[in-house]
Amino acid sequence: MFKIESIKSQSPQVAIDKERKATKFDINKMFEFLESGKDEAALTKSLMQQIERDTILKTNASYYDLTKDQHRELTAQKIARLASYIEKDAPFFENFQKRLNLIAIVDPQLGTRVGVHLGLFLSAIRGNGTEEQFKYWAFERGAAYLKDVYGCFGMTELAHGSNVAGLETTATFDQKTKEFEINTPHLGATKWWIGGAAHSANHCVVYARLIVSGKDYGVKTFVVPIRDRNHNLHSGVAIGDIGAKMGRDGIDNGWIQLTNVRIPMNYMRSKFTKVTQRQEIVEVPPLEQLAYGALLGGRVTMVTDSFRMAQRFITIALRYSVGRRQFGAKNSSEELKLIDYPLHQRRLLPYLALTYALSISSFDLSQTYDSVLSNLDAAGKSQDFSKLGQAIAGLKNLFCASASLKSTATWYVAQLIDECRQACGGHGYSSYSGFGKAYNDWVVQCTWEGDNNILASNAGRLLCNLLSSCKKKEKKIKGDLSYLNGISNIDKEAICWNKQSMTNLSNSNIDKELFCFNKQVCTVKLINAIQGTIIRLGVRVPNIGSKKSTWDDIAAQRVVLSKLNAVLYMLQHLVLKIKQLGDEEAHKQYLVQIAALFATSQIEMNFASYFLQFKAIDSLEPVADVVSELCLSVRDQVIGLTDSFQFSDYFINSALGSHSGDIYNTYFDTVNNLNNPQVRDGKAAYSEALEAMLRRDPLEVRECFEKSDKVLKKLAPKI
Amino acid sequence: MFKIESIKSQSPQVAIDKERKATKFDINKMFEFLESGKDEAALTKSLMQQIERDTILKTNASYYDLTKDQHRELTAQKIARLASYIEKDAPFFENFQKRLNLIAIVDPQLGTRVGVHLGLFLSAIRGNGTEEQFKYWAFERGAAYLKDVYGCFGMTELAHGSNVAGLETTATFDQKTKEFEINTPHLGATKWWIGGAAHSANHCVVYARLIVSGKDYGVKTFVVPIRDRNHNLHSGVAIGDIGAKMGRDGIDNGWIQLTNVRIPMNYMRSKFTKVTQRQEIVEVPPLEQLAYGALLGGRVTMVTDSFRMAQRFITIALRYSVGRRQFGAKNSSEELKLIDYPLHQRRLLPYLALTYALSISSFDLSQTYDSVLSNLDAAGKSQDFSKLGQAIAGLKNLFCASASLKSTATWYVAQLIDECRQACGGHGYSSYSGFGKAYNDWVVQCTWEGDNNILASNAGRLLCNLLSSCKKKEKKIKGDLSYLNGISNIDKEAICWNKQSMTNLSNSNIDKELFCFNKQVCTVKLINAIQGTIIRLGVRVPNIGSKKSTWDDIAAQRVVLSKLNAVLYMLQHLVLKIKQLGDEEAHKQYLVQIAALFATSQIEMNFASYFLQFKAIDSLEPVADVVSELCLSVRDQVIGLTDSFQFSDYFINSALGSHSGDIYNTYFDTVNNLNNPQVRDGKAAYSEALEAMLRRDPLEVRECFEKSDKVLKKLAPKI
Ligand SMILES: Cc1cc2nc3c(=O)[nH]c(=O)nc-3n(C[C@H](O)[C@H](O)[C@H](O)COP(=O)(O)OP(=O)(O)OC[C@H]3O[C@@H](n4cnc5c(N)ncnc54)[C@H](O)[C@@H]3O)c2cc1C
Ligand SMILES: Cc1cc2nc3c(=O)[nH]c(=O)nc-3n(C[C@H](O)[C@H](O)[C@H](O)COP(=O)(O)OP(=O)(O)OC[C@H]3O[C@@H](n4cnc5c(N)ncnc54)[C@H](O)[C@@H]3O)c2cc1C
Repeated sequence: MFKIESIKSQSPQVAIDKERKATKFDINKMFEFLESGKDEAALTKSLMQQIERDTILKTNASYYDLTKDQHRELTAQKIARLASYIEKDAPFFENFQKRLNLIAIVDPQLGTRVGVHLGLFLSAIRGNGTEEQFKYWAFERGAAYLKDVYGCFGMTELAHGSNVAGLETTATFDQKTKEFEINTPHLGATKWWIGGAAHSANHCVVYARLIVSGKDYGVKTFVVPIRDRNHNLHSGVAIGDIGAKMGRDGIDNGWIQLTNVRIPMNYMRSKFTKVTQRQEIVEVPPLEQLAYGALLGGRVTMVTDSFRMAQRFITIALRYSVGRRQFGAKNSSEELKLIDYPLHQRRLLPYLALTYALSISSFDLSQTYDSVLSNLDAAGKSQDFSKLGQAIAGLKNLFCASASLKSTATWYVAQLIDECRQACGGHGYSSYSGFGKAYNDWVVQCTWEGDNNILASNAGRLLCNLLSSCKKKEKKIKGDLSYLNGISNIDKEAICWNKQSMTNLSNSNIDKELFCFNKQVCTVKLINAIQGTIIRLGVRVPNIGSKKSTWDDIAAQRVVLSKLNAVLYMLQHLVLKIKQLGDEEAHKQYLVQIAALFATSQIEMNFASYFLQFKAIDSLEPVADVVSELCLSVRDQVIGLTDSFQFSDYFINSALGSHSGDIYNTYFDTVNNLNNPQVRDGKAAYSEALEAMLRRDPLEVRECFEKSDKVLKKLAPKI
Repeated sequence: MFKIESIKSQSPQVAIDKERKATKFDINKMFEFLESGKDEAALTKSLMQQIERDTILKTNASYYDLTKDQHRELTAQKIARLASYIEKDAPFFENFQKRLNLIAIVDPQLGTRVGVHLGLFLSAIRGNGTEEQFKYWAFERGAAYLKDVYGCFGMTELAHGSNVAGLETTATFDQKTKEFEINTPHLGATKWWIGGAAHSANHCVVYARLIVSGKDYGVKTFVVPIRDRNHNLHSGVAIGDIGAKMGRDGIDNGWIQLTNVRIPMNYMRSKFTKVTQRQEIVEVPPLEQLAYGALLGGRVTMVTDSFRMAQRFITIALRYSVGRRQFGAKNSSEELKLIDYPLHQRRLLPYLALTYALSISSFDLSQTYDSVLSNLDAAGKSQDFSKLGQAIAGLKNLFCASASLKSTATWYVAQLIDECRQACGGHGYSSYSGFGKAYNDWVVQCTWEGDNNILASNAGRLLCNLLSSCKKKEKKIKGDLSYLNGISNIDKEAICWNKQSMTNLSNSNIDKELFCFNKQVCTVKLINAIQGTIIRLGVRVPNIGSKKSTWDDIAAQRVVLSKLNAVLYMLQHLVLKIKQLGDEEAHKQYLVQIAALFATSQIEMNFASYFLQFKAIDSLEPVADVVSELCLSVRDQVIGLTDSFQFSDYFINSALGSHSGDIYNTYFDTVNNLNNPQVRDGKAAYSEALEAMLRRDPLEVRECFEKSDKVLKKLAPKI
């Protein structure tokens, strides 16, 4: 809205527009790079357009004003809408998955509420069930289309989360009726946090201890119907709503108590464990791990989520940083743009670089996931043990990569959202900026589907083990982790990434320095420095401490190793991808700078002490200098670099980050549309009480003068 | 509630109780230490008791379920209640201030809504107004009692926050009528974020440019009545509600546009600037800074808030870490307590140490603030220039300390809340754990009343300047910063805090190592190491970069300096205070360990690369080892060390952190009391729509079979 001005004001939109026009590369080319190819980019765009136009899926600023109950209901409406998209996408469920990932950018809770059903409930059946079992529940009964069967995933209990093997729900085989009796023996075994259980789901994959003839065979999975066709709870099933959460209030997480609930014996998912009619147990133990494969999908998706969320919030903060001015530049009537402060560049641009690095990694990881899963499937069917061995090795690598990327990426993106909010000053605290809800929705990603500290220390342990078997020359590692083989000559090799190499990096030699490849392994000094640090840290940790240390004693270092591994993965994959571009492509040089900024800023922000300790760098200052210089080179392309994400205002959904850059008008109008200043003549609903307080009688009057001198004299005892 | 168990479950309360009984010191003594003395401790306790019993001030788990409108209304009710406490506390307003600080532990938004009136509106009048002006508004009109006058603080504008000198609201003097005309010239100059403006306040201290005879005299402050006795907006005043925020929804932040609003000339706060009837300006420029003193109070309070919030959340996480078990210990039927994992200790115990350090600093800083303020007052009245000079020097020191402590403490406590939440796993994400709302309420402390990055870089600049004048031997510094004088021989002195001193620290010599004092300056090696690092970094930064660098170029290093300075302040004050305890006091040895843990963990977590770079340590490993060992020594007293805060369940307000330790029953019962599973037979309000989706007709039916082969054949063009 155009408003009367008695003095001319700043025009953020002019500044943003000017910088947009100064973009020196083709943002469509950059978009294709980020989306991992032309076709994928086109698909992303068309799905985004379909979402943004769909009136039911619509999310806008009013979203930030909804109460928990409104979020719940709206989410249900959107689920119904999505269900019809599944039917249209079928049988190309990958399309639907991508649709879901994109919707999660603006409505993460919706993503989860459907994701739990498709990604956890159905994947668990797929991973643990026989092919027939999967077909029955998915297609005959309709779960694949969110029809008739709405599933939830009942793993976590009140007293057990990370330690799945310690779950206490029991599934006792009854030889007479050929049924299982599922039971919650005490409060701590109550299924807890179960997404969709409170109100939506009618089936649950329950993790429970298999008990046959009094013997405990450990935790297996069972399909338990919890609600009937009329959506009433089956007898023996008690369910409650877990209530308000820090974020994602649109999900109806519930608790479930099962009291001797009976299910047919074939409701046990029995790809790997079967109970025969005669109470015998048949297990296929070496393949047990395969069951796990299907559940890694959640972690892989969270890396994609990290990329998408990073895109959204770095865009908001950078557009704002170009539009917002604060404090004067000498000899200028205009104040400086925030982004022209080196401190502001250093706060934001490393996160822009991270976003680019996340893009490539998320696509590469998804691809690996798909191929590992189909290898497992094929190997499983073939029953060829050498194929199986290979498939399982692939699964292990995937486990390490996904664990360290999921934990590192979700932590980093939490930091990114927080830093971007702070970079928008007070306005970042307005709900309509989008930061608050996004942060609250986001941070659970650090906890669920594998708590970050546990995943990271698992990945770290794997790295340590691999290193120690490399050291003993027990095996030669292939793939992303092959650099670990370098342990044998690490102490002789100079891995020091010194002042000279940094100076090279910051000037025109950057391309040469960053992109000299030697066989499959990048030998670029920067990557080398990270690899060397991982190896030196990894070799040392088992000896840390004076006494002989346990794995638990070195858990903190394992977490550091996992983070380093994630950064290395991101850097290597980014660099490889850039290398594929022709030198004539205008966007290549910016990508090179971004890759260098990613690596150097990561070292500076998160690992400098390790790099110094392990002589991977010889001083802090040159690193700091390179970071500053790279920030400066990236700085004038920030509008182009974020426009390249091609997020429309719908996907940004922030009063501070719209494409036009007209920050103040957009923000003011949003606030007033949602908080009409004319309602009740601008008075609060409770105004009367407030006014009564202000106009209250003096204290003496309210005390009925009963403390006045006159009264007190009267009341004084006569002596 | 006692429940039927078919298998025995874990009993977290037993574990907590056992550890409570194993406390090796008197928690009342520790409480007195933390509250800075016996009397102060007694006052804290009695005020807490009064708050917790007051039915109107009551806050409990249902607080986490309130909507924005409910928060607003409830807060208003509580304000009315508090107003009557002010009248009873008067004239001891410090009492009331303390009451307010304590209430803010469980209801920060209430603290702010009253704090803006007393701490900003009234303080601005006190700081900038004449004594008569203050008396009039505070006592004659009733503002001091929250009676008749409810003030708000109108500094920030839509386009200007940190840069106060750039504000664009104008106050133009009208010689004819002897009035000021206050005007919002354009949208960007709209007052924004003004706490209490939306619905509560009837007066505003407006920051506006003083224009006399066309000349701009810069930003001054004016009292502007915005609502009349009937709480209707005065003509020319437009106000709106800013709406939903990330947190503190109980505050009615508003925007204000003033269109040629006229106020009498004496409504300008004129302690330092007066406009005479003849349009002359009289300014007392050297004292301008004094005006600022009153506003530093907010920063000082935020350090107290940091301490209180840290107490609350570290208590929750540590109680939970003792009650919660996960994963097995070898050779034991019981799983391990979370706190027995070294990783968990390293995540939480440094924050426990931080909490203790914050305690002492917050009390010391408040005391300094009071004395600086009264020195300023006295000096101002005496008009004695040497006294004024001294008072202003004190103000500068206070500025540096409060800026670096406010920014560092609020950042650290944001991290603390987040880490504590993650340490409680999924349950930390439940609203009823308290973490979510607390985090959201908290983080604005990093932005308002001086954005952290700006405050920290200001403090850092001050340190650099002091250092450079020390280097030139221009002056000798007194007080907390006197160690900067050491610059002259810093390069000769060995500041290396090496393996040997660390080994000493971690064993029985700790007391000697940490507590050898030399004159006023601590010479303990650890403190020395920090001081040395500050000096070496501070001396270097101006030369950083190849080209001659500006202050902006080194802003990132200035922020680091400020953080180091805050840590040093906390450590020095903590150590001094411990030193005052007799060696026979049982709690002393734990305090010594805590001080050492605070220092070493800070170095490890935040400054290790600087310590390595500047040779204040020679290797990472010994630091890591000491941290681990100190964690282990503190570990078995964690219940006692948090019980020492003497927070009742009311002040904890968390389903996970109650004193009894009966985590699962408390949590389950809280969830069910607030989310009755029986309502609508456990169905959602929108269940019908959801069920309709599940039972929807097949796609072909919904498409009226119009894509069937039969139809398509009919529709095929005949060729
Ligand atoms: C919103 C939400 C939705 C969810 N949805 C579902 C769902 O649909 N279905 C489902 O089954 N679950 C669900 N969960 C549960 C989630 O998967 C668990 O919260 C998660 O697995 C972590 O387990 P926990 O909460 O029990 O944490 P715990 O395992 O108790 O861990 C608590 C803390 O202790 C630390 N810790 C634990 N063990 C160790 C160790 N050995 N060494 C060092 N540190 C340790 C962890 O790092 C963590 O910080 C959901 C959770 C949330 C918050
Ligand atoms: C809930 C809430 C309540 C509030 N209540 C009040 C109130 O009652 N009264 C009132 O007057 N105000 C109030 N404020 C406003 C608050 O004081 C301002 O938000 C704060 O001063 C920061 O200013 P800003 O938002 O304009 O940020 P900006 O000054 O625009 O800063 C934005 C970002 O840029 C960075 N930056 C700015 N300048 C520089 C520089 N020179 N170098 C490097 N970086 C820079 C900052 O670090 C920050 O990250 C409130 C704010 C909030 C969120």
